[in-house]
Amino acid sequence: MLNPFDIVIFGGGGDLSLRKLLPAMYRAYQEGNLPEGTRIVPTVRALANEQEFIDKVQESLKSFLAKGEYNAKDWKAFSTFLKPMVVNVTEQDDNWLQLKELLESDADDKARVFYYSLPPAVYGRCSELLSDNQLITDTTRVVVEKPIGYCGASAEEINAKIAEYFKESQIYRIDHYLGKETVQNLMALRFSNVMFENMWDAKTIDNIQISISETVGLESRAGFYDKAGALRDMVQNHLLQLLCLVAMESPNKLTAKSIRTEKLKVLEALRPLVDADVEANTVRGQYVPGQLDDKLVPGYLEELGENSETETFVAIRAHIDNWRWSGVPFYLRTGKRMKKRCAEIIVEYKNVSHNVYDETVGGIEPNRLVIRLQPEESIQLTLMSKRLDNLEMQLEPVTLDLDLSKNYENGFHSDAYKRLMLDAASGNASLFIHRDEVRQAWAWIDPIINHWKTAGMPALYRAGTWGPDDADELLAENNHTWYNAGSKD
Amino acid sequence: MLNPFDIVIFGGGGDLSLRKLLPAMYRAYQEGNLPEGTRIVPTVRALANEQEFIDKVQESLKSFLAKGEYNAKDWKAFSTFLKPMVVNVTEQDDNWLQLKELLESDADDKARVFYYSLPPAVYGRCSELLSDNQLITDTTRVVVEKPIGYCGASAEEINAKIAEYFKESQIYRIDHYLGKETVQNLMALRFSNVMFENMWDAKTIDNIQISISETVGLESRAGFYDKAGALRDMVQNHLLQLLCLVAMESPNKLTAKSIRTEKLKVLEALRPLVDADVEANTVRGQYVPGQLDDKLVPGYLEELGENSETETFVAIRAHIDNWRWSGVPFYLRTGKRMKKRCAEIIVEYKNVSHNVYDETVGGIEPNRLVIRLQPEESIQLTLMSKRLDNLEMQLEPVTLDLDLSKNYENGFHSDAYKRLMLDAASGNASLFIHRDEVRQAWAWIDPIINHWKTAGMPALYRAGTWGPDDADELLAENNHTWYNAGSKD
Repeated sequence: MLNPFDIVIFGGGGDLSLRKLLPAMYRAYQEGNLPEGTRIVPTVRALANEQEFIDKVQESLKSFLAKGEYNAKDWKAFSTFLKPMVVNVTEQDDNWLQLKELLESDADDKARVFYYSLPPAVYGRCSELLSDNQLITDTTRVVVEKPIGYCGASAEEINAKIAEYFKESQIYRIDHYLGKETVQNLMALRFSNVMFENMWDAKTIDNIQISISETVGLESRAGFYDKAGALRDMVQNHLLQLLCLVAMESPNKLTAKSIRTEKLKVLEALRPLVDADVEANTVRGQYVPGQLDDKLVPGYLEELGENSETETFVAIRAHIDNWRWSGVPFYLRTGKRMKKRCAEIIVEYKNVSHNVYDETVGGIEPNRLVIRLQPEESIQLTLMSKRLDNLEMQLEPVTLDLDLSKNYENGFHSDAYKRLMLDAASGNASLFIHRDEVRQAWAWIDPIINHWKTAGMPALYRAGTWGPDDADELLAENNHTWYNAGSKD
Repeated sequence: MLNPFDIVIFGGGGDLSLRKLLPAMYRAYQEGNLPEGTRIVPTVRALANEQEFIDKVQESLKSFLAKGEYNAKDWKAFSTFLKPMVVNVTEQDDNWLQLKELLESDADDKARVFYYSLPPAVYGRCSELLSDNQLITDTTRVVVEKPIGYCGASAEEINAKIAEYFKESQIYRIDHYLGKETVQNLMALRFSNVMFENMWDAKTIDNIQISISETVGLESRAGFYDKAGALRDMVQNHLLQLLCLVAMESPNKLTAKSIRTEKLKVLEALRPLVDADVEANTVRGQYVPGQLDDKLVPGYLEELGENSETETFVAIRAHIDNWRWSGVPFYLRTGKRMKKRCAEIIVEYKNVSHNVYDETVGGIEPNRLVIRLQPEESIQLTLMSKRLDNLEMQLEPVTLDLDLSKNYENGFHSDAYKRLMLDAASGNASLFIHRDEVRQAWAWIDPIINHWKTAGMPALYRAGTWGPDDADELLAENNHTWYNAGSKD
């Protein structure tokens, strides 16, 4: 069981806090994982009265929790954990002293988490003020949200700034995809089953696809997104992090340090894409108006209201140059306004080396492991089996469900933020990202961005499709096909 | 679709015919697998009137079919296929001429199946009479029930006698275990999934257990059983046949000829057990009175009514001396009056070579494939997975069901006899046993029997248990444990 801790959510009245972080803490409470004595301190810029903010949190919980999770009794108990405060994260003023007073009213060694639900531009200044006010104890951790920088250099600058005030071991760079139960189960499956880890290499795996498709367009993020694009927004962090977990070597022990070391080794082994390689192995796309769920939706330029060469879709064929993965393509893909919302990792095995059946028995499909992170979490294994209702031998693919949430009587609500916030509180850094990983990921991304700068417009794709044709052609070069939401489309 | 055929069931009024063979044909009809023009000829010693026999068949179907299978409409249609006849299988008389007349009333090339549901002692004479009456056409097959002989020499004698009248390609030696859907699915799984066939050897499999446990005692078979014993009754045929299918190499093509060739190679590779080896690698048992399902049941001697050294339980540690299986123990076990009725093949993989977790995560159990043939048919794969409801990483074994019968809307009634009888009618010999296999199986069994003759009384075990302690100790020598009905007990 966790010890009581204090968590200060800077930007506590913002979207992320209300939609994700505070509901996550409510769930932790419901599960009995929020120890008595824990204090949750959402900070806001201004607070007319405390009750008004508390009411706002209550409304958010009602909206953003799953059906059946919210109830008045738990809310009442949970609300006593909340200590909203006004803090201006860029100015020294009396509010900082009140925060200090609150935090220091408990024992010195109480775990303290500062969650930066803030624009990266103020990470440095906020850290400085925390330091100035002597709020950084030995048991303090800071949780840093993406995006960290727009390129290697700017990321390095932000990281260096935070590092002036925090030790690397105190800095928890979060990627909520890594907090998903199925991602951790992927590691558990690999490392506790001879059937997986013994066949987790280029000898038996044919290709791996990691795809995060969104149906939304720009939403309210136009200013940020048009400067960033899909590569910076999704590939540099989420997709590369998932790639690392899928591809990493088995560590000696599954500790935070060893996981980070193994992930870094994967990033270091990524074959660089420079100039002509970028042309040959990447596809950029931008959506034009199209149809989604029977509704016409506008194109990217229409949403943005101006011209832009920003990519809203990326597909990349990556290779990991090490013994385990030599020759296995890793296909990364992400896009907005795609046909379905889905995040999944597809491990496609090589097919049987020889078919002992004749053609009447039906084709043999390769074995496939599908780890789905969104919209629901599941893990499925597809095998070939015999049809029972035929006298003649007939094969058919069958799908085995490793999604175990149905085994839990009261349902199981996977909540990546909950896990990661509690991990930060307990000092477990395994699922957070080391500075070296950020640096190495950018080192691979920067040359792609550089090449694209001179490459003209992205390929166009209709909203509501699986992206530009070029993305299909990229895979066709290797006789592969995208699995779109788990199946060939 | 099958062509119409004639099937003559010698011993058609006997237990096997009424309980298994005729219900199997009824099922074939219900599924649309009994072509119009097919004739089923159960022969009996005496037939007061035909209707009386037909009524008896109807009663048997009602008793022995599963719930919902019997209905008056289908019975009416099915009964028109039945042509019961009187035939004395050891004497030439006019009845044979009537049989001849019936069979020859259809085309010469109509497939003809003679099913010997008879004591093996009369196989030769019956074959001779079939030959004398010119009833053996090119498209004739004879289905021969076990037991074939009491030792290699007597089996050879029976096989030689039949071979005087039938070509080997016409002789279908049946083992109904091989007709089970799950046994064929075992082959389908092996040969159409890289996840199985690539890990089907001594490098990844630790041990294989094949166990057929019965809860019944002697029943009405005292005369036969006390002379035979469990080794002859179960091991020589069923257990060794299952062993062959599990252990065989992948053939070039899955044809009858290649399957038999591969099975024979397994039998030839069985490490002989002679004298001291028998002592070291086998356990004989005989049950004494005990408790089964809360009822006291008598011991073997009480049931038999006289003294006997016959074994009612056998456990054997076998080795297959070839590249694939070197060092992997195959544990064979069968017994009467055991705790549960169960026939299953358990493939236990080696455990992960290294545990990356610390002890708080829970022990890692090896992966396990359980192919169950009785009482119900199923295939299950047990893997380790992450518990979802714990914040800390916790592993637990989960069982994936490859039993696909639930996918079939109207239920699926696996019927091994149905499959095998229709296979014989269509000339598909893949699931039948070649003379060379019988010979080779006895060559391995005979020395064990010979040693036991001088080895005194079998070990005693209480009815309602999993057999004598010696059987557990046999496995303990290799740090293994029996899986009793799928789980360690």
